[in-house]
Amino acid sequence: MEPDSRTPCYDALVRSFARRHRLDHLLQIALWDRAALMPRKGAEARAAAVAEMQAWLHRLATDPQLQGWLERADEEPLDDAARANLREMERAWRRANALPEALVEATSLATSRCEQGWERQRPANDWAGFLENFREVVRLRREAAHRLADEAGVGPYDALLDLFEPGLRAAEVDRLFADLQRWLPPLVQKTRERQVRREVELPKGPFPKERQRALSHRVMALLGFDFEAGRLDESAHPFSGGVPEDTRLTTRYRDDDFLQSLMATIHETGHARYEQNLPRAWLGQPIGAPRSMAIHESQSLSFEMQLARTRGFAELLAPCLGEAFGAQPAFEPDNLHRLLIRVQPGLIRVDADELTYPAHVILRYGIERPLIEGSIEADDIPELWDEGLARLLGIDTRGNFRDGCLQDVHWSEGLFGYFPCYTIGALYAAQWFAAIRVRDPHLDRDVAAGRLDGVFEWLNAHVWSQASRLPTTELTLSATGSVLDAAHLRRHLEARYLG
Amino acid sequence: MEPDSRTPCYDALVRSFARRHRLDHLLQIALWDRAALMPRKGAEARAAAVAEMQAWLHRLATDPQLQGWLERADEEPLDDAARANLREMERAWRRANALPEALVEATSLATSRCEQGWERQRPANDWAGFLENFREVVRLRREAAHRLADEAGVGPYDALLDLFEPGLRAAEVDRLFADLQRWLPPLVQKTRERQVRREVELPKGPFPKERQRALSHRVMALLGFDFEAGRLDESAHPFSGGVPEDTRLTTRYRDDDFLQSLMATIHETGHARYEQNLPRAWLGQPIGAPRSMAIHESQSLSFEMQLARTRGFAELLAPCLGEAFGAQPAFEPDNLHRLLIRVQPGLIRVDADELTYPAHVILRYGIERPLIEGSIEADDIPELWDEGLARLLGIDTRGNFRDGCLQDVHWSEGLFGYFPCYTIGALYAAQWFAAIRVRDPHLDRDVAAGRLDGVFEWLNAHVWSQASRLPTTELTLSATGSVLDAAHLRRHLEARYLG
Repeated sequence: MEPDSRTPCYDALVRSFARRHRLDHLLQIALWDRAALMPRKGAEARAAAVAEMQAWLHRLATDPQLQGWLERADEEPLDDAARANLREMERAWRRANALPEALVEATSLATSRCEQGWERQRPANDWAGFLENFREVVRLRREAAHRLADEAGVGPYDALLDLFEPGLRAAEVDRLFADLQRWLPPLVQKTRERQVRREVELPKGPFPKERQRALSHRVMALLGFDFEAGRLDESAHPFSGGVPEDTRLTTRYRDDDFLQSLMATIHETGHARYEQNLPRAWLGQPIGAPRSMAIHESQSLSFEMQLARTRGFAELLAPCLGEAFGAQPAFEPDNLHRLLIRVQPGLIRVDADELTYPAHVILRYGIERPLIEGSIEADDIPELWDEGLARLLGIDTRGNFRDGCLQDVHWSEGLFGYFPCYTIGALYAAQWFAAIRVRDPHLDRDVAAGRLDGVFEWLNAHVWSQASRLPTTELTLSATGSVLDAAHLRRHLEARYLG
Repeated sequence: MEPDSRTPCYDALVRSFARRHRLDHLLQIALWDRAALMPRKGAEARAAAVAEMQAWLHRLATDPQLQGWLERADEEPLDDAARANLREMERAWRRANALPEALVEATSLATSRCEQGWERQRPANDWAGFLENFREVVRLRREAAHRLADEAGVGPYDALLDLFEPGLRAAEVDRLFADLQRWLPPLVQKTRERQVRREVELPKGPFPKERQRALSHRVMALLGFDFEAGRLDESAHPFSGGVPEDTRLTTRYRDDDFLQSLMATIHETGHARYEQNLPRAWLGQPIGAPRSMAIHESQSLSFEMQLARTRGFAELLAPCLGEAFGAQPAFEPDNLHRLLIRVQPGLIRVDADELTYPAHVILRYGIERPLIEGSIEADDIPELWDEGLARLLGIDTRGNFRDGCLQDVHWSEGLFGYFPCYTIGALYAAQWFAAIRVRDPHLDRDVAAGRLDGVFEWLNAHVWSQASRLPTTELTLSATGSVLDAAHLRRHLEARYLG
């Protein structure tokens, strides 16, 4: 402790959080490695190592010394950034203390086991095998939800939502999703009627994996990814992991379809640019962390949906595709754009188009919330899934667990409360781009010419560089002049699909 | 603690060591990742994370509670394995306590910096740049050597040797190396005179990297590597890392020469099979660790030198090479064998043949020992290197730091005292194979037919499965009926090169 510091308790907190950041670095790299590279027989030892570390990080996060420092730091002369950092520290402290270490360790082991099993069970369509591990994950997450809920004085599902989007409540999700369900299905209907009349030339494969990989790297470079501070690899489920100083993206390649992989890469690149541009001076402190998962998804969807599905981006992408796979009619910019905005209800969330994506999220929300609240059981999921997908998208998924309720990794990892962040992220992304379009009315033309800097500058100024300085509502207000307003997404979709 | 255990203190020790094993897992994966995959800008955060973890592992290793447990466990009714485990625990405890945490952390940071710098400085031939970081590494390792020496009552270089080969002293290294220097140079001389009269057809490249990678995988499979419990990747300096449950090998590929990379892969596969076959029940305990680094190198050299340079192995390898690169005269078994046992003094240790390899080790030993003892400084290294290589192998290396004193990663990592293990490992490997040949007089014929199981069974029974149950001397006695005897290497080399 600096002897002459006027903020000794705050300084002690800063050191404690920096230390946890350094240790968490090792955990994050090991988790990335597990999903991307680890051979099968390493699973047991890795799960034990991860659980040990998570338990220890939890012990550090609940160190009783912190409480006194937090109380006394509040009386110290802190500047605005330090005060914001202290606010986030207090939040982390409350959250950590709601959970006993044994629960943290048991959850780590159970989710490791469930995720490792899922990697085999999904391709084998083995719901019964998955269920054996999954029941324990549900039991442990329910317990965590109730403990967190008791601490915060909210409902158990609210308490899990709050882990990913601080302040978000199920009532607000209900309101936003009810609004979407009012105007989105007719929009899907009208769009499909229009699109059915327009021919789309399909790309002709095969698309060799090595070429796809080179294409991914090229598009990531176009999108400003810093390859000296991150990598692209492969995994069963695309994700963005690692640490802000070294972001690790993954995608997956299919010989017969390059667009899925490319769009997944673009999605993850949005996450990565947020991480790569978090303010370096704050790294390791709670104020320097990404604001929330809805804001994180607003970045991936800004890239995947807002930017990469403009007419201009099709123009930018067309020559890259020709060089990667040889010229073909499907790569002509008009056709490519029609391909990118084609609306087609499908089984898989990550491959969904912009208009039907919310239905996938609403389906999962409608299952995981009662699951956590205890009104349904894990065993009930397939039936609810079949019924929901039939109702929301008119698709029959009975017996197909692989492309049904086993398709996502989230639940096996115990990530209940995360799914709503995708669609709320889409709402934010639309609001960001409404602001960007006000500043740049010729956005499409600029994108076509590869002038993406204006977009990145806006995102950097209003989102990336802000990290967790402001709560989400204030961040939104400061960035766009208003709080979250779903009308932006509606206007954007109507302009793109009916305009 | 089990309430009715008759060995409560020993049990507490077992739990403490198991916990450190789990945490060390994360550290080892991060170190492997740093060498094999990490992008440049991740270096600073990684170094901080590694140092934090090493400092914490050191704190756990010096937890004052351990001392009481160690003393009382000695009075508890332990079986032989537990008693051996306790012996290794006591050794670890004494060693850890000799070093203060600040020194451990400073060394971690200094070696991270030096190694990261080395990766750029070596290709740039930048000795001056390297020296800036390296002086600090030397300073810190000298301090560690003196502290360890004071604790153990030995010389400072002895204390570092002891970290890698418990019980080995510089006086013994001097004796073994003096013996080698007596009979090896004439043997090199005679061999070269014989070989100069025999034509060797050189393989014609290029050898595409993808083909080399596939060949490496095929040969590793022949050698019994378990790909479900490990991987092969690439790095600037081939090494074997990871954890016993998930061994991570690296190699490097050159378009114009596949043999260097293949031999490096075979070397690392020897290390890997030791790790992959350590007894699972003991993993996480000191008794379950590899016996020592000389014994570890005896495994890599059993594979690279003893096995892979037999006439039989050339027969086994020949069709693999033809399939990988297309048939050519150089791959004919007789010619291939002549290639594999060709003796040619060269600059690079890891590419050296069996006969000139010891000279590289003797050179490094002759520099690092006085460096640690303080009679020379880091600045003196290039001059001593030039003089030594000229004297030992008749090669001029002046000005060529890249292929001279910058060629190895060891010193940048602070690994002084390690190099002798290579040549002592070669002595052990020759002693193992003398015993194996007694059991199987038709070894060459069996190897040619791909019947390698006899070799692996012997190594497993006498080395791999023994882990650290016995001190090295007893292990050797139990495996071969005598203590280490350099005559085995001499007989082996004379038979192979003059026979």
